[in-house]
Amino acid sequence: IRVSLPAVCIVWQISMIILFGIFIRYDAESDAHWLEKKPKNISAIENDFYFRYPSFQDVHVMVFVGFGFLMTFLKRYSFGGVGFNFLIAAFGLQWALLMQGWFHHLGDDGKISINVYSMINADFCVAGCLIAYGALLGKVSPVQLMVLTLFGVTLFAVEEYIILNLIYAKDAGGSMVIHTFGAYYGLAISWMLYRPNLDQSSRLQGSVYHSDVFAMIGTLFLWMFWPSFNSAITEHGDGQHRAAINTYLSLASTVLTAVAVSSVFQKHGKLDMVHIQNATLAGGVAVGTAAEFMLMPYGSLIVGFCCGILSTLGYIYITPFLEKHLKIQDTCGIHNLHAMPGVIGGIVGAITAAAASESVYGTEGLTPQGGHQAGALCVALCFGIGGGILVGAILRLPIWGDPADDNCFDDESYWEVPEEEESIPAVMQ
Amino acid sequence: IRVSLPAVCIVWQISMIILFGIFIRYDAESDAHWLEKKPKNISAIENDFYFRYPSFQDVHVMVFVGFGFLMTFLKRYSFGGVGFNFLIAAFGLQWALLMQGWFHHLGDDGKISINVYSMINADFCVAGCLIAYGALLGKVSPVQLMVLTLFGVTLFAVEEYIILNLIYAKDAGGSMVIHTFGAYYGLAISWMLYRPNLDQSSRLQGSVYHSDVFAMIGTLFLWMFWPSFNSAITEHGDGQHRAAINTYLSLASTVLTAVAVSSVFQKHGKLDMVHIQNATLAGGVAVGTAAEFMLMPYGSLIVGFCCGILSTLGYIYITPFLEKHLKIQDTCGIHNLHAMPGVIGGIVGAITAAAASESVYGTEGLTPQGGHQAGALCVALCFGIGGGILVGAILRLPIWGDPADDNCFDDESYWEVPEEEESIPAVMQ
Amino acid sequence: IRVSLPAVCIVWQISMIILFGIFIRYDAESDAHWLEKKPKNISAIENDFYFRYPSFQDVHVMVFVGFGFLMTFLKRYSFGGVGFNFLIAAFGLQWALLMQGWFHHLGDDGKISINVYSMINADFCVAGCLIAYGALLGKVSPVQLMVLTLFGVTLFAVEEYIILNLIYAKDAGGSMVIHTFGAYYGLAISWMLYRPNLDQSSRLQGSVYHSDVFAMIGTLFLWMFWPSFNSAITEHGDGQHRAAINTYLSLASTVLTAVAVSSVFQKHGKLDMVHIQNATLAGGVAVGTAAEFMLMPYGSLIVGFCCGILSTLGYIYITPFLEKHLKIQDTCGIHNLHAMPGVIGGIVGAITAAAASESVYGTEGLTPQGGHQAGALCVALCFGIGGGILVGAILRLPIWGDPADDNCFDDESYWEVPEEEESIPAVMQ
Repeated sequence: IRVSLPAVCIVWQISMIILFGIFIRYDAESDAHWLEKKPKNISAIENDFYFRYPSFQDVHVMVFVGFGFLMTFLKRYSFGGVGFNFLIAAFGLQWALLMQGWFHHLGDDGKISINVYSMINADFCVAGCLIAYGALLGKVSPVQLMVLTLFGVTLFAVEEYIILNLIYAKDAGGSMVIHTFGAYYGLAISWMLYRPNLDQSSRLQGSVYHSDVFAMIGTLFLWMFWPSFNSAITEHGDGQHRAAINTYLSLASTVLTAVAVSSVFQKHGKLDMVHIQNATLAGGVAVGTAAEFMLMPYGSLIVGFCCGILSTLGYIYITPFLEKHLKIQDTCGIHNLHAMPGVIGGIVGAITAAAASESVYGTEGLTPQGGHQAGALCVALCFGIGGGILVGAILRLPIWGDPADDNCFDDESYWEVPEEEESIPAVMQ
Repeated sequence: IRVSLPAVCIVWQISMIILFGIFIRYDAESDAHWLEKKPKNISAIENDFYFRYPSFQDVHVMVFVGFGFLMTFLKRYSFGGVGFNFLIAAFGLQWALLMQGWFHHLGDDGKISINVYSMINADFCVAGCLIAYGALLGKVSPVQLMVLTLFGVTLFAVEEYIILNLIYAKDAGGSMVIHTFGAYYGLAISWMLYRPNLDQSSRLQGSVYHSDVFAMIGTLFLWMFWPSFNSAITEHGDGQHRAAINTYLSLASTVLTAVAVSSVFQKHGKLDMVHIQNATLAGGVAVGTAAEFMLMPYGSLIVGFCCGILSTLGYIYITPFLEKHLKIQDTCGIHNLHAMPGVIGGIVGAITAAAASESVYGTEGLTPQGGHQAGALCVALCFGIGGGILVGAILRLPIWGDPADDNCFDDESYWEVPEEEESIPAVMQ
Repeated sequence: IRVSLPAVCIVWQISMIILFGIFIRYDAESDAHWLEKKPKNISAIENDFYFRYPSFQDVHVMVFVGFGFLMTFLKRYSFGGVGFNFLIAAFGLQWALLMQGWFHHLGDDGKISINVYSMINADFCVAGCLIAYGALLGKVSPVQLMVLTLFGVTLFAVEEYIILNLIYAKDAGGSMVIHTFGAYYGLAISWMLYRPNLDQSSRLQGSVYHSDVFAMIGTLFLWMFWPSFNSAITEHGDGQHRAAINTYLSLASTVLTAVAVSSVFQKHGKLDMVHIQNATLAGGVAVGTAAEFMLMPYGSLIVGFCCGILSTLGYIYITPFLEKHLKIQDTCGIHNLHAMPGVIGGIVGAITAAAASESVYGTEGLTPQGGHQAGALCVALCFGIGGGILVGAILRLPIWGDPADDNCFDDESYWEVPEEEESIPAVMQ
């Protein structure tokens, strides 16, 4: 079994090279002929690179540092949190370029043209799988994560194609396409992989002081760069501008209500780091679909307000309920951070879209329809739950080297962990 | 008392929603009609979003990760440092959009138009309050911080209006408007809240090895992105370009002199992490006002050179003096990092402005006057000290739930802190 | 000896101020006359600042946070890793602006014009010296590092001038100019400073759990922003666009093969943090020269594939071999991360350049020649090894205050380290 991780990595990477060789090419704006072919009166600054590259880098930071460090909060699973996140994101983005390319960017010559826009979309696609990882953190092997990512990206690309190209819904920030799908995908897998004796490793399920501070690095980079996430692939100009403003406001509002609810429900009014690390981000998820619409600044604040409350209550009441009664073990609480806010985001998007009028958007503006948005939400839910059950069934096969119940949440299983008992006293004396 | 934090968060956030509903709208460049209304020969890349969004994100990182992690250096107040920083910044930026909007961007229709420029200014305004928090770190309750922020943002907006719109001074990087005001505001509050028995919690006033490394995250992100801070709201083109260069140089120079002075005054020539974490940033503060002027590269180096020396000496001599003789307890040493360099920045700005000539700036260039700059510095000082005494008096009321003298610098008061004594040995075995 | 660090810092900083006063001026795009002098039909967005500033900031993060935190992995040398990195980078960038200016940007009036492009190049030049520091981490004094940087930057500027301006080779991402040179420079110095009794401090040569997590911050910021590194100074438009895509792909591929090889060669298939922290970056180094060429997406994946394998094998086999048989002690394993991938990068660049045809690049495209590229690689090697031996000889003089063999890798030598044995139990009880 220990040979499977190297084998999977090498074989899949070689497959990627072959498929890239056959299919993937530079698009017109990243090809060396661009200077010749572009209209002469267009400046080089009009290359899409300059519109989107800063947003791409912010999204990139969210995917690798944001998700990665958010998952370092466990006392002895920080290596696995940040390290496996790194591994599956690096694999997933290659597969996403292919899958999304076949559906969206396949030219008449059978080639996929990639550019900065494709890179953002590949990172988005990977984000869906990393959300699913959050539910499974500490309970699966790296090979299982690779399989989860392979199927997750595949399902994502199909779901995204249906939502954007068949239903003609809009979802710039991915409340439905990324968050709803990713969260239900992960929760369904976790349900399939239910471990009744997980309390055998309960000693490792908490955090230590400094692991909570590491997790705040993830939280803050997610929080700060979410305006870039929601505006990265919106229309040039006012679209990107508006999406950034809406997300900025929604997130600010979420922080206050998350703090308030956390304090109300704890003994002595103390704050819980789990809520601050996670629930403060719910506003960014929920404003994803509607970020580019004319949601209005106060609308963004309202969305953030509700999600901060709901997400924190979810950590207090729903996560224990899911574990006890529905047999869904959700390590990071992605149901509260991604699933519920994602669904709310889809609904907010549908309402905002249904209320769209020409006087608000202008003749050249967006004119989506509420029904399409609602349909898209259903598609995301079905793909998430259905796909998760399917992939969960595959991951239950006893061939993947997943840890025993009393070895969960322990880096020792998959990492060379430095010995501490001898060295620290030596240093301190 | 424990109910006050949730109550304040919820009530104030609802107020924000109502006020945003009444007053705040998208401006022309973030409204869906922009494509219709803009001149046809203007490309979408001319939207102000593309000039300023990368700088905005850098400033955003400084406010949340920079200030937040700089305040994690205490051994048992890292949650409070980064967590309360997060809370008050998220509240403050909403209130700042309103306050600065009423003074600067109120249209004929009674609405405030917001855009990326407003978001940067809101972050700037919040930075002033976070500086003040630095003096009070570990000694105040979150409700006190919310009150500090409410009044701080209000005072800031008035002070800024007087300096920029009545006196017609320039202060792109906020040496006076942000740093001088924020630092004296915090120091005056700290003076009003003097705790004679603070040595009862002296065991918690130091750092541990890893908390110092966390603080370096804050230091480095502040240091690296300061060129964006000082150039974020300067003129398009050469203005932003020059401000970034000047700040880059000034900060580089500061590092060397801070290291030199730290080494000279420590036993055996060792370096002190407090100096490296803080004094290395003084050059960014001091070059704020003059960053967009024709300060010249060597001028930037000279400013950084002096401030690195002065700020480090401040940590060695002035902070103990302030505490012993003036009864000002300054946890982070903001007097050395923001107050003194901010005043120097104001003076450098006044001198540079007084020396401005048409041959240097050109006919379309900046033509501010030294006297206006000097007047602006006085306004910032008066608002900081006066406002701080006023707000300090309010915060002395015995209703805010501030910690007892022997509970200062301890996260236990306001946070659920993970138990360590049991778990770590269990892990290590 | 302890007076030498302050003296060096102050004297060299004063020299910088004088030399900047004599030589350094703003260039046309950062000068206040730009608005007057630029053609009227050119928008302010065409200022080079907007093409390159986001990339500059990413490079800046790589130099200070990336290299700095990558070097925090040792259990008791985190202060030295991130702190001395900060010091020598801040000094080096000033000296680099001068050295590179004299060679590349000296105007007819004897002045050097600086802009955002110069700032990127200065950061690049510094990166070469920080790579060299990686080999010496924990074994040298800060004064030795300052000397290493002074000579390193000088050698770099001459080497770069020969490669770019005399040989007319291309090396946008610096595989040869930065990585090959920097790595062999550091290895040659380490060879000259060989310590036969270094095992006396072997108790400090490992990591602890949280120091490995800190190092992952460095790894991830290097990994994420490498596309900006390799595209920062390429041609506007498709050049920057293509360089970012190639680097993004190469790095993704490297992660999978590094994980695979790490797992194969460890007991029980476990992963080694040293490999994940370092070898995953080799693809970014190796694609540096060819990033702007028409390497094709699958070509980038192949480069990353090979380097991930080679670099990880290097950590397993070559580093111990170098130490045992060649007497080269390489703390961070820069031979595996920078030297070998850098040489591969030079070779890939030469092959890609030799294969360039007009049909691929167009008449306005790049037309470099393979032979020039191969020559450039030799120059980089010679300067690295030769310069390193020279500077190593200087650093062997017994005047620099380097630590004794049993004090290596210990922050106690140069930093005030917080006492832990008393305080932590007090906190935990």
